[in-house]
Amino acid sequence: METRCESGITPLTEDACWRLLKAADVGRLALAIAGEPEIFPINFVVDGRSLVFRTAEGTKLFGVAASPLVALECDGYEADTGEAWSVVAKGTAERLEHFPDIYAAEELPLFPWQPGTKQWFVRIGGATLTGVRFKVVRGPRED
Amino acid sequence: METRCESGITPLTEDACWRLLKAADVGRLALAIAGEPEIFPINFVVDGRSLVFRTAEGTKLFGVAASPLVALECDGYEADTGEAWSVVAKGTAERLEHFPDIYAAEELPLFPWQPGTKQWFVRIGGATLTGVRFKVVRGPRED
Repeated sequence: METRCESGITPLTEDACWRLLKAADVGRLALAIAGEPEIFPINFVVDGRSLVFRTAEGTKLFGVAASPLVALECDGYEADTGEAWSVVAKGTAERLEHFPDIYAAEELPLFPWQPGTKQWFVRIGGATLTGVRFKVVRGPRED
Repeated sequence: METRCESGITPLTEDACWRLLKAADVGRLALAIAGEPEIFPINFVVDGRSLVFRTAEGTKLFGVAASPLVALECDGYEADTGEAWSVVAKGTAERLEHFPDIYAAEELPLFPWQPGTKQWFVRIGGATLTGVRFKVVRGPRED
């Protein structure tokens, strides 16, 4: 059960966070590489209690190998209720290297928006989820 | 001038990145606190060649004081062209502490969506901007 706080910000249960992530397909992945923050928009999919995304060779793949702790944020605005939500999943990212894992990942409904070959799968496991829902004080800019 | 690459991903000029950030008002701020990534959705405003946001006491404020290098990502999807864009600004965040700076910041059109008192202003300066625009391979999920 969700409890709306006096602040106007409602913390979300972990189950509610998973439901929101399942319905989303774009998030932003934050890494700390050599102590410096990096951030990337990604397409991801929820698989069980983990999150999977595809990537090419590059900073993301190098980053998760060097610093596997990651934070993935996802948010949305619901015009009909005037409410916004934000969920952050923190977990450990691991590149899939074994064929059975890769074959299984290829069955996931994971469709990167961005063109280009993304031959690697990364799974974020051991995730802890936190989220909030709140009434937007002022709607999105209309200009 | 923008040059569309064969990959289908067009790098954006720095001016194009600033224009997109000016028209946006929500982004996601990535920090590296004690080597671990943190990510927060924020409302921000472009002021000259810097970015300003408000925050309360908390992880964001502590984080930028401890690790001032930040990365702010902003993205969008344009349904009429089927194109998405993403801009990342990396810079150094600084809490405004002098009254003239704070008074000036209070004049900025900065309207946090989230309820609650956000008494501190943070300015991200010295930002380097990179961005891309690309045709979305598959549109947003309609279910």
